[in-house]
Amino acid sequence: MSYVRRQVERMAGYVPGEQPKIAGLIKLNTNENPCPPSPVVLNALRAAIDDRLRLYPDPTASALRQKLASRYGFDAGQIIIGNGCDDILNLCVRAFCGECEKLAYFWPSYSLYPVLANIQGATPVELPLDDDFQINAHPGLLAKLAGVKLVFVTQPNAPSGVWLPRVELQRVIEETTGVVVIDEAYVDFAADNCLDFAREYDNVIVARTLSKAFSLAGLRVGWATASSALIAALNKVRDSYNVNRLSQVGAEATLDDWDYFQQNLKKICATRQRVSDALVKLGFFVYPSQANFVFARPPAGLTARQWFERLREQKILVRWWDADRIRDCVRVSIGTDEEMDKFLEASEKTIR
Amino acid sequence: MSYVRRQVERMAGYVPGEQPKIAGLIKLNTNENPCPPSPVVLNALRAAIDDRLRLYPDPTASALRQKLASRYGFDAGQIIIGNGCDDILNLCVRAFCGECEKLAYFWPSYSLYPVLANIQGATPVELPLDDDFQINAHPGLLAKLAGVKLVFVTQPNAPSGVWLPRVELQRVIEETTGVVVIDEAYVDFAADNCLDFAREYDNVIVARTLSKAFSLAGLRVGWATASSALIAALNKVRDSYNVNRLSQVGAEATLDDWDYFQQNLKKICATRQRVSDALVKLGFFVYPSQANFVFARPPAGLTARQWFERLREQKILVRWWDADRIRDCVRVSIGTDEEMDKFLEASEKTIR
Repeated sequence: MSYVRRQVERMAGYVPGEQPKIAGLIKLNTNENPCPPSPVVLNALRAAIDDRLRLYPDPTASALRQKLASRYGFDAGQIIIGNGCDDILNLCVRAFCGECEKLAYFWPSYSLYPVLANIQGATPVELPLDDDFQINAHPGLLAKLAGVKLVFVTQPNAPSGVWLPRVELQRVIEETTGVVVIDEAYVDFAADNCLDFAREYDNVIVARTLSKAFSLAGLRVGWATASSALIAALNKVRDSYNVNRLSQVGAEATLDDWDYFQQNLKKICATRQRVSDALVKLGFFVYPSQANFVFARPPAGLTARQWFERLREQKILVRWWDADRIRDCVRVSIGTDEEMDKFLEASEKTIR
Repeated sequence: MSYVRRQVERMAGYVPGEQPKIAGLIKLNTNENPCPPSPVVLNALRAAIDDRLRLYPDPTASALRQKLASRYGFDAGQIIIGNGCDDILNLCVRAFCGECEKLAYFWPSYSLYPVLANIQGATPVELPLDDDFQINAHPGLLAKLAGVKLVFVTQPNAPSGVWLPRVELQRVIEETTGVVVIDEAYVDFAADNCLDFAREYDNVIVARTLSKAFSLAGLRVGWATASSALIAALNKVRDSYNVNRLSQVGAEATLDDWDYFQQNLKKICATRQRVSDALVKLGFFVYPSQANFVFARPPAGLTARQWFERLREQKILVRWWDADRIRDCVRVSIGTDEEMDKFLEASEKTIR
């Protein structure tokens, strides 16, 4: 007899991208930001390393919530902080979707969504994106939303990087009787965002992270905004001390040094364009990316797996999934210009 | 219509002890350690504040697990790290107890247990401790274990601080067909521990924290040990990046400076004895504590609430719950000798 819940026993856990410790590796596999956190952030963290670490953190991260509220134009009561954005996504499942209830997500997308559904014992409902990885809110798709308690959608999408049309997304929000979580993990690299949907619709949560655009993956800080009613429900299922002292300090200082990060974003978006253009010139197909990665299909004669493996042999780590609809492409995080030059050079070699 | 799961809507969230920002406050309400983290820990943290914060942490905290495994004599595969011990407790619920299944806990105890049961939609089963807050594994109590999937027991118990008899606990473990989590958050202040039960029984998990004995509440690091089968199940429901870079670094350095913390523990236990004796002398009843707090009942003529409130007027914060079976006592964390002298002085005033 097993002690483990049946659905947990049956399921495979989420598999994160590798975090290998190989010297000289060019790491383009988990969408980390190539720029370091700002000196302001590092100094604030250093100043917080003292006796106070013996004390519990502020359980509601009130200073950080206030800063986010001011920056984005919400009330602090409309904001919740998570131990990374994944914590937020998990809290959404726990607050809004019970065992055997329907949890929907667009697909292909972030592979954590079905894992979170399985852990909860919820019924996963795949909402297929079309061939261009776009939402097409046709009647067949909308029919799948019947009785759904929670919908996850990544905007811009991952791993494709494409921006999902607002009008189609809006139809999904309006047709859903449950909560729609717009996972904007990569939105800081995009030309638009959907925060207005969180203001306008009482069933929309927009989730964000400081891991990507703000170079803080090592500290795990995510946040979300929605109506204060939804935020109150999320707080009920949140661990009181989910975000530690240093994470709160680092995130607050990040918001204090806004311009530094905006400069980095500009640079990364410029590099993204340059890499996309260069890959196209080499014969690759590149999805139009609004994120800090590109999703690309190699030219005839080279499979995505071969591309991935040959890059790896040259100590360049990108991400490839052996999964339906995406196994013909590779996802490449945007690193420094120097790293991307090496990546392009190595890619050119693989097709020669 | 509400978007929120019915059981979440109905429940009240967990209420953590206050973390007020009042200058000059003597904070004896959340069992923090009065000694700072060691200089070794602070230096290791400072050395980790650099560009690497842009990168995700090690998802399995392998170096930390290895250090814990060596220290306590387990395999690293028998250890899991949590974002605080509360994270571990939550993972136990998610891995072992489904919606409408029975989750039992001794009572009165840590008020998070019923909250975790309610979030999961599990059926809470109270296992009453006897009048001395001891386990008495009589047939009536054992009958309540029928069909239980998960049992929480705090050893030494909280808020009473008493050590629970091993023999009675062992009977509970042997009579339970589910998993028993021995929450040893305070065990480092005790003369004994139950790690051997985790070695001996395949249904026992021992959970620990670095928040109390190791002065690291601000960084949120908990851990647990059990059979590798139970740990594997916990890992399936764990967030991959639940413990951030700095928390891992701080915890590793803590284990490297073992003697510093053992000295602190000795000092705190000596202060605990001195405070207990002084309170008894003043006419208070004090439960025999094996933790870093004392649970005490004031002499006739003073209610626990009055004691709590009059201490607060003098800027001394302790913990009082308006709850059955414990509202006649106050829980006092053991602070520095100086803080406890002020506490004793203030307490003496309240009974004069």
